[in-house]
Amino acid sequence: MIVGIVGSGLIGSSLLRAIRANDSAVRTRVLDANPEHVRQLAALQPGVEACERLEELARGADLVFVCTPVKAVADIVCALIPLVSSSCVLTDVGSAKVSIIAKVQARFPDFTRFVPGHPMAGGEAAGPAHGTAELFRNRRYLLTPYDGVDDGAIERVAAFVGELGAQVSRMTPERHDEIIALVSHLPHLYAFALMGAAAEETQALGADVLAYAAGGFRDVTRIAAADARMWLDIFEENEAFLTRSYELAKAHMEGLLDAVRRRDSERVAEILTASRRLRLEMNGDMQP
Amino acid sequence: MIVGIVGSGLIGSSLLRAIRANDSAVRTRVLDANPEHVRQLAALQPGVEACERLEELARGADLVFVCTPVKAVADIVCALIPLVSSSCVLTDVGSAKVSIIAKVQARFPDFTRFVPGHPMAGGEAAGPAHGTAELFRNRRYLLTPYDGVDDGAIERVAAFVGELGAQVSRMTPERHDEIIALVSHLPHLYAFALMGAAAEETQALGADVLAYAAGGFRDVTRIAAADARMWLDIFEENEAFLTRSYELAKAHMEGLLDAVRRRDSERVAEILTASRRLRLEMNGDMQP
Repeated sequence: MIVGIVGSGLIGSSLLRAIRANDSAVRTRVLDANPEHVRQLAALQPGVEACERLEELARGADLVFVCTPVKAVADIVCALIPLVSSSCVLTDVGSAKVSIIAKVQARFPDFTRFVPGHPMAGGEAAGPAHGTAELFRNRRYLLTPYDGVDDGAIERVAAFVGELGAQVSRMTPERHDEIIALVSHLPHLYAFALMGAAAEETQALGADVLAYAAGGFRDVTRIAAADARMWLDIFEENEAFLTRSYELAKAHMEGLLDAVRRRDSERVAEILTASRRLRLEMNGDMQP
Repeated sequence: MIVGIVGSGLIGSSLLRAIRANDSAVRTRVLDANPEHVRQLAALQPGVEACERLEELARGADLVFVCTPVKAVADIVCALIPLVSSSCVLTDVGSAKVSIIAKVQARFPDFTRFVPGHPMAGGEAAGPAHGTAELFRNRRYLLTPYDGVDDGAIERVAAFVGELGAQVSRMTPERHDEIIALVSHLPHLYAFALMGAAAEETQALGADVLAYAAGGFRDVTRIAAADARMWLDIFEENEAFLTRSYELAKAHMEGLLDAVRRRDSERVAEILTASRRLRLEMNGDMQP
């Protein structure tokens, strides 16, 4: 089996490591816009074939993972479609699905072997140096096939990432983007904005307000250290659902603030207690 | 020296432990609305005097820490003032200062030995069982004396908590409440609200959205597991600055969202990059 990986950041390089650790019979090919990344990876992982062009990577491949920044995914998929064999399956790992699918469908409405995917794994540390073979183990891996995608293609991706330890499940692209906007994209928006607010307040007060930030602030803003370019892309690609999630969260923030201002302690206590209970229930999850 | 501690939650019980670990010549007295807490603490810490009434605790005390929920602080301080000796210093550990001070000043305008304080230590685990003797070590401990507070009283509190390892600094009550609203109270508001939004979305979609929450969401909402009663009090006590901080953060969130919607990638990149840089700079702080 030949597996191609386009993009060797945290996800792409982890995928490569996981495949190499899992099954030495799989041949792996890597291509990255940054040739230095590819050389590093090939040196780390003997047997990896470093490619300079998509044609090389596509030739005879059975499965290709597109692990580039989310904004580049659709173009790479569209570039691969004419190059791959008639049985090759394409998949991606972008964290916003609807816009990628729309672009691919607009150009290749009859192509049925693109299986959009999203491993729920990552972190604020980006780049090939932070990849690990264990990144997908016991993590959710969402597949979001659209109408017309071939069942066999879906099965091939599901089986392959399942072998790497991921917990595969399916949902529609729309539902994916709505849920991920709330549980991932919005928290990032908030973290970036809170750092901006702290910078403004520091300037306004002439005092380093961050010097007084304790554990809570640190937790909430940790993801503001995430890759700026990657999050710019994600925000733009999932703008509609991000806006919806923001409006939803804003209604909850302002509802809570209103109750505080009205001194409706019963209502405030009800909100805080329900949120606290829900958060404590999360602790037993698969991703502690 | 005799030190009284009213309230044996996380802060009060940690204070007691730190004092006992630090200097066996200090006599400690504890009072808690929950007598079971006091019995537990007295059993854990031999030599601690458990009191049932404020009169007992106040008699001959040199320094009294009021470590109750923030809403009860002013009443306890006002109850202590007529009971303590003319040299006894009173202090508290509440995380909102202006409203406490206003209440004490309204009733005892001439009392000069109340030194409002705020140790920047804590966590979502509340209660005496989670206290540790090391809670204050290398943590900021803010004193927020108002006009007229006796210098000697301020010095006594500063020296005492400095001995427990805290890094003492001073600021005005107003500046304290403004800064802490942004770096502590607002992140809590956001965490509680985000859990509420997730609950609403779960109901609306008929899907457990929290099952898809990864590390970022967990970080941002961790503090939603904090004590609901305590946070109800803090929100109400610091409502004005909390509202200001919310408006500031909202302007940053909506400014970022607007730039995303306008596809002003340059502006979005600028915001994200500045926030990221600021967050990375925080890592070297005293509270990692």
